[in-house]
Amino acid sequence: MTSAVKRGATSSTRDRDTQTAREETHLWTRSVHVHVTMKIYFCGSIRGGRDDVMLYRKIVEKLQSYGTVLTEHVSSTELSHRGVCDVTELMSCHWSGEDASAAGDRFIHDRDVNWLRQSDVVVAEVTQPSLGVGYELGRVVDMKKKTLCLFRPSSARVLSAMIRGADDGERFVVRDYGEDEVDEVLEEFFNALKRT
Amino acid sequence: MTSAVKRGATSSTRDRDTQTAREETHLWTRSVHVHVTMKIYFCGSIRGGRDDVMLYRKIVEKLQSYGTVLTEHVSSTELSHRGVCDVTELMSCHWSGEDASAAGDRFIHDRDVNWLRQSDVVVAEVTQPSLGVGYELGRVVDMKKKTLCLFRPSSARVLSAMIRGADDGERFVVRDYGEDEVDEVLEEFFNALKRT
Repeated sequence: MTSAVKRGATSSTRDRDTQTAREETHLWTRSVHVHVTMKIYFCGSIRGGRDDVMLYRKIVEKLQSYGTVLTEHVSSTELSHRGVCDVTELMSCHWSGEDASAAGDRFIHDRDVNWLRQSDVVVAEVTQPSLGVGYELGRVVDMKKKTLCLFRPSSARVLSAMIRGADDGERFVVRDYGEDEVDEVLEEFFNALKRT
Repeated sequence: MTSAVKRGATSSTRDRDTQTAREETHLWTRSVHVHVTMKIYFCGSIRGGRDDVMLYRKIVEKLQSYGTVLTEHVSSTELSHRGVCDVTELMSCHWSGEDASAAGDRFIHDRDVNWLRQSDVVVAEVTQPSLGVGYELGRVVDMKKKTLCLFRPSSARVLSAMIRGADDGERFVVRDYGEDEVDEVLEEFFNALKRT
């Protein structure tokens, strides 16, 4: 076999691969379009304290069954309370934008406010006091986003009056819950969304 | 002396008293108008933690030399981290609106958002993580208020990226400071305000 024939065969294989890849991309895109259209912004404490990170993970996993979670990194155990990746994880860290410098903070702020604007729904875990979560919730009031705040009374904390008192029973809702009720509470919220 | 004369004398004394009271009110009103026109909203943590309450007191005292501090109660040692008055202080508590019920929280939220809208300037101590302070700062961004956030690096905390990153160098400013710099930092801020 000549090298020209070999080249032809290779070229034809390449074309077939490209075509298959295109079809797969098309199918994937359709699938995303059909099943994962909702954009969800999840708020959880980072620099306020990472005590609840495993619970954030559980909430984000459930949220991903309803749509794309723009702030999935909030539930990452790679992200420390200093808002940076742990040193041991530095080489594999996906969230290099989380560095705690003024320029890094501006980047995070602008990116997150942009995501907030894009989002269809906001879900916040509000048991751990956090300036960032509070700020995001203050911003979404003016953005008029459908918002669910989740608070655990078992923590023995008292939720801020500014959050509990913002509950209007419709657009901005505060829900007390227990750790074992994550699935149930989120199902209830998203099912009610479908009906509106 | 007849009772009619007595009544006349009493009536005349009453008129004089009323006139004096009117003049005093007028003078007081003018004084308020001339010297205390600026409305200042101070943000500090309540339910997030009361560790810094003595510092809040110091800041509020300085702020009162520039105007009326609408949220003076935030710096009150009578107010506990549960957002209610300590039991021992209950009889003399001035802040009975701070009860942590849903209706109480709605009252606090609506009152404070109303004060935020009325305020000319917002000053926040942001060292202690707090959902309420974060929420207030999120709301003032859209209200376009001149805002100063004070953070103490000596706390060894890292300020939320959403707060540090919101600094635009003009309307919303974050300033690192030490406890002994309260007067200096506030003088600098209010002097700069006069020039704008």
